[in-house]
Amino acid sequence: MIIVMKHHAPDEYIQAVVDKIRAAGLSEHVSRGTERTIIGAVGDERVFSPDAFELMPGVERAMRVVKDYRIVSREVHPADSVVQVRGQAFGGKAIQIIAGPAAVETAEQMAQCAELVKAGGCRLLRGGAFKPRTSPYAFPGIGVAGLEQLRQESRRHGLPMVSELLDVRMLETFLGLDVDMIEIGARNMQNVGLLKEVGRINKPVILKRGPSATLTEWLMAAEHIAAGGNHNIIFCERGVRSFEPSYRNMLDLSSIPVLKRETHLPVIVDPSHAGGKAWMVPSLAKAAIAAGADGLMLDIHPDPANAWCDGEQALNPQDFRQLLGELAALALALGRTLA
Amino acid sequence: MIIVMKHHAPDEYIQAVVDKIRAAGLSEHVSRGTERTIIGAVGDERVFSPDAFELMPGVERAMRVVKDYRIVSREVHPADSVVQVRGQAFGGKAIQIIAGPAAVETAEQMAQCAELVKAGGCRLLRGGAFKPRTSPYAFPGIGVAGLEQLRQESRRHGLPMVSELLDVRMLETFLGLDVDMIEIGARNMQNVGLLKEVGRINKPVILKRGPSATLTEWLMAAEHIAAGGNHNIIFCERGVRSFEPSYRNMLDLSSIPVLKRETHLPVIVDPSHAGGKAWMVPSLAKAAIAAGADGLMLDIHPDPANAWCDGEQALNPQDFRQLLGELAALALALGRTLA
Amino acid sequence: MIIVMKHHAPDEYIQAVVDKIRAAGLSEHVSRGTERTIIGAVGDERVFSPDAFELMPGVERAMRVVKDYRIVSREVHPADSVVQVRGQAFGGKAIQIIAGPAAVETAEQMAQCAELVKAGGCRLLRGGAFKPRTSPYAFPGIGVAGLEQLRQESRRHGLPMVSELLDVRMLETFLGLDVDMIEIGARNMQNVGLLKEVGRINKPVILKRGPSATLTEWLMAAEHIAAGGNHNIIFCERGVRSFEPSYRNMLDLSSIPVLKRETHLPVIVDPSHAGGKAWMVPSLAKAAIAAGADGLMLDIHPDPANAWCDGEQALNPQDFRQLLGELAALALALGRTLA
Amino acid sequence: MIIVMKHHAPDEYIQAVVDKIRAAGLSEHVSRGTERTIIGAVGDERVFSPDAFELMPGVERAMRVVKDYRIVSREVHPADSVVQVRGQAFGGKAIQIIAGPAAVETAEQMAQCAELVKAGGCRLLRGGAFKPRTSPYAFPGIGVAGLEQLRQESRRHGLPMVSELLDVRMLETFLGLDVDMIEIGARNMQNVGLLKEVGRINKPVILKRGPSATLTEWLMAAEHIAAGGNHNIIFCERGVRSFEPSYRNMLDLSSIPVLKRETHLPVIVDPSHAGGKAWMVPSLAKAAIAAGADGLMLDIHPDPANAWCDGEQALNPQDFRQLLGELAALALALGRTLA
Repeated sequence: MIIVMKHHAPDEYIQAVVDKIRAAGLSEHVSRGTERTIIGAVGDERVFSPDAFELMPGVERAMRVVKDYRIVSREVHPADSVVQVRGQAFGGKAIQIIAGPAAVETAEQMAQCAELVKAGGCRLLRGGAFKPRTSPYAFPGIGVAGLEQLRQESRRHGLPMVSELLDVRMLETFLGLDVDMIEIGARNMQNVGLLKEVGRINKPVILKRGPSATLTEWLMAAEHIAAGGNHNIIFCERGVRSFEPSYRNMLDLSSIPVLKRETHLPVIVDPSHAGGKAWMVPSLAKAAIAAGADGLMLDIHPDPANAWCDGEQALNPQDFRQLLGELAALALALGRTLA
Repeated sequence: MIIVMKHHAPDEYIQAVVDKIRAAGLSEHVSRGTERTIIGAVGDERVFSPDAFELMPGVERAMRVVKDYRIVSREVHPADSVVQVRGQAFGGKAIQIIAGPAAVETAEQMAQCAELVKAGGCRLLRGGAFKPRTSPYAFPGIGVAGLEQLRQESRRHGLPMVSELLDVRMLETFLGLDVDMIEIGARNMQNVGLLKEVGRINKPVILKRGPSATLTEWLMAAEHIAAGGNHNIIFCERGVRSFEPSYRNMLDLSSIPVLKRETHLPVIVDPSHAGGKAWMVPSLAKAAIAAGADGLMLDIHPDPANAWCDGEQALNPQDFRQLLGELAALALALGRTLA
Repeated sequence: MIIVMKHHAPDEYIQAVVDKIRAAGLSEHVSRGTERTIIGAVGDERVFSPDAFELMPGVERAMRVVKDYRIVSREVHPADSVVQVRGQAFGGKAIQIIAGPAAVETAEQMAQCAELVKAGGCRLLRGGAFKPRTSPYAFPGIGVAGLEQLRQESRRHGLPMVSELLDVRMLETFLGLDVDMIEIGARNMQNVGLLKEVGRINKPVILKRGPSATLTEWLMAAEHIAAGGNHNIIFCERGVRSFEPSYRNMLDLSSIPVLKRETHLPVIVDPSHAGGKAWMVPSLAKAAIAAGADGLMLDIHPDPANAWCDGEQALNPQDFRQLLGELAALALALGRTLA
Repeated sequence: MIIVMKHHAPDEYIQAVVDKIRAAGLSEHVSRGTERTIIGAVGDERVFSPDAFELMPGVERAMRVVKDYRIVSREVHPADSVVQVRGQAFGGKAIQIIAGPAAVETAEQMAQCAELVKAGGCRLLRGGAFKPRTSPYAFPGIGVAGLEQLRQESRRHGLPMVSELLDVRMLETFLGLDVDMIEIGARNMQNVGLLKEVGRINKPVILKRGPSATLTEWLMAAEHIAAGGNHNIIFCERGVRSFEPSYRNMLDLSSIPVLKRETHLPVIVDPSHAGGKAWMVPSLAKAAIAAGADGLMLDIHPDPANAWCDGEQALNPQDFRQLLGELAALALALGRTLA
């Protein structure tokens, strides 16, 4: 902790800060500058909150020196972590594509999607069974039946299944159906109860970024999961809220180099939810891979114009196939492979 | 629904849109302009999503005409609603102040806070028992014991009690302890499971604005609660995420005139969480009242420098008393009273 | 300057930082903590940029301790400054209302506005002659003729005149017409050439906040003016860009307590441009005053529905009169007067 | 223009809207829906502002149907435009790299940079002579001497020169020195006087995006230039202001597919100013190219740790060479070439 005193703070105020540091079992370094006195607290600064100092008379501000995240930080674990999902590796040389419908609608639609995914050479199948919706009158997903249809196609094609968990009360159902990878959606990034529950299991978790989460808050949300014992975490960038009205979210690809520096865990990108428009997906998907992402999560639909949910952002079969071809060329140029 | 066709969209594309409108049992008005053809769908447009049209060839964009919220909208219910909380009215002439500690720490601290609240003439007592925290290593609140201490002081002084519910699994406990008013925090504004559960009970609910929620999303979150049958909802503005680093959130007082126009439900403001600094609270609290808020939610603490949580934003007893005096004068000038 | 070294940075890296500090004529304090070594540079840190250290091996980050603004800072000048505009004081007990049309249209419209301003008891008259517009096809103001009409009404009623200067090449014209107070608009807050020019004259300057300027950037823009010798600066908050679509800008009233703490100069608020809707103005105007603003800048128009520019945000005569009455009552309750 | 009437708006209000439309020489289509009446104005809607209708009684809102930009829009000019800069084409198959120092410091530094640029196979040389700075005490560039040094190296190596114009009063100097491509910086994107002046010359203009400009505002700023007759405009995305503190700006690569759809003009990206950190540049530069950018603008410096300005974001010679190699491979995979 560094405590910066106000201009001309009297000695008694400086002494009070020193006393507080010592009372917590730490020691201090006092540096008297020409304009400000600066005090460093030496020892485990996590015993203090900066608030505790900023409320003392004569203190201008107090700053943490050490970051709050530990288990997920690259400082603690310098090498890249590889997360295994039923035989598929995230965080290695291969770029993983998770594809499928935003919402499972019918057995037929789910089967068509799974065939597209398999034929395209992708290795993981997604499907939404429970959909978080802004409106109480919008289609909420078909629920457990959707998970079951997803599971049937997953097992038929040997594609690990991925689905979003919205509510702690559904975790047992997800585990009972052996969902291979659990997605925590953007709206739930700081749903601490849910984070703690998926921290207690050993399934890989995709943690989407909250719509206005800073990178530190996102890393701390992962730390909530990791603190429970589950270190199989994959970050998924999906854009943040912005002032620009022409797309749904502003995809923040700068998050990729920062996360790669701050954490050892894999990072993937969801270009479908970011832009919210199918015609933007190829551009954003290629950019994500070039920026260093370890994978993508793509919305596809056999007939987007008649999708029950988010049709505008789903790739149709033809565009999906074309994008996969482009991504494969790109992956090679980047020294990676498209799984 | 208004569908704007692209420049020079051929007749067959226009016809396809018309066919789709008719197929859903609605009728159309086609307006051929010099640059664009515009098609209006007449009937209950909620049967369509704009997506369904935007994916059709020749369509530039499609727009809803009717808003998605109904029960909470002023259009449906033009008169102001007054929400009663154990005899205290929100949304009438009186401005209600809810005050108490961000976190209940000890029986003594809770008792001191309750006395301050009572002595100051405020009518409702708050206290945090379960705290959502960014870090898994931060103080999470003392839990049920905190609720019990809050309840004891509430009943001793005749001040209805208010506390935040984080997790659906705790709802029974809240009901068992007869918490008078349940707060849904900013991080949970779109936690649909939680919204649905509080929609099924008959307790008043304070719905805080999510950190980057638009006003429409906030109104829709309230609609999730209202759709379950509970119309006792109070909006609480608490600031939104911004680029400005000198305070925690940017308090958005423009939300007050907009909400007053769009909904019949009461609106209050939390200036403590907004700025995150006690020295900003008086300025923001007064501004909130002048902007038209029906109440305030204030963090207080007998000794902020030693608070276990959020001390930097808590008013100390002296500043709290002074602020209440200023607010009373202001309320009079505004033709209201300070409850 | 505080330099935080990386975990386990070797001694040679620490020594290189120390050498650089000494080479600039400053001295160092080295504080070796359990996790990080922290080095403080003692002396005038403005000789360094933090960049210079952050690029050195082993350095995690470097931070300024002293703020970059000096002349405008309250630290240098603790007492409130009062800025005089042809006999009207900003920054004292009186709350000043500057009112007039967004754009001068005709002699008659300008005369009607001036009468409304005078009759309402306001003390300063504004009128836009040059309008910065997003579109090259939008009405750009009537130019010098507008300034002349504004001047005529200003002198007739004894109301100091205020108008926006867009371009350095027009400064001589403004001075020739003896414009009493020059407004630098939001789009020009960082137009350094313009700031320098108004820094060389002795007319009071209203400096509006840029649409996404941090408070520090705004203070630094004022410092650009002040560094030229002109200290007659008044800050004008007018809202910032946000994600919310229901109003033009998000009025940031938290800026008022922060500016009051950081600078000795007056602060006013423009609620008309903030919300962009006349029906929001009364709520925001009252909130601004209650938050501690020293004045307001209001758009009015005798017939808003037929205004040539920004009609939607102009108060009509009746609403303007009513608002002035409400503001007078509010000012009294706040211990101030409405000038 | 589409005018949506309020629920149950009486006939007289509808008639008033119709009368206003007719008075302007347009005709109307009235569509009476179950909940709302919608009125379309047929003819050149640019004669109206939506405000003019929104202020009429009974009107809920009014919306433009046609976009405000014309010359720069792809609707008017469907094919891609190629902008020639002294023999170098922007907007064709080749990806153009503009590189050089953020600020020209000395003849030697400029010469070293030019050699790096030439050796790397880049085709355009940049150098900042006039620097817009947040602080009046920061290094403002060396001025005309810098332009002259840039010019000398430009001509020696046959690399067209690019430099930023801050002030209308310097335009003659830029033309006199035959600067090949004029950059309008982010802070000046809405400096209308400057836009108009560069609209009157025939030099190519790089128009950077303002820090919080929407894409429509950016397109309109280009329209300001184009309306003067200069259609040689290249857009440069450089990131926008955001809430994330770990980098300077949030690079918005979603702007690329949107601009490619809305305008026929080329788009380049400045990854150096976006992130503000040299270690982020390779990731962002590759992402920009993959997203579809027609070029990049890169900060380089022979010795970043001793740069006079923005050293933290400049690539050193080694990292610059490595990035160029990676970009060449990427360009091939994308079916383009690295010029």
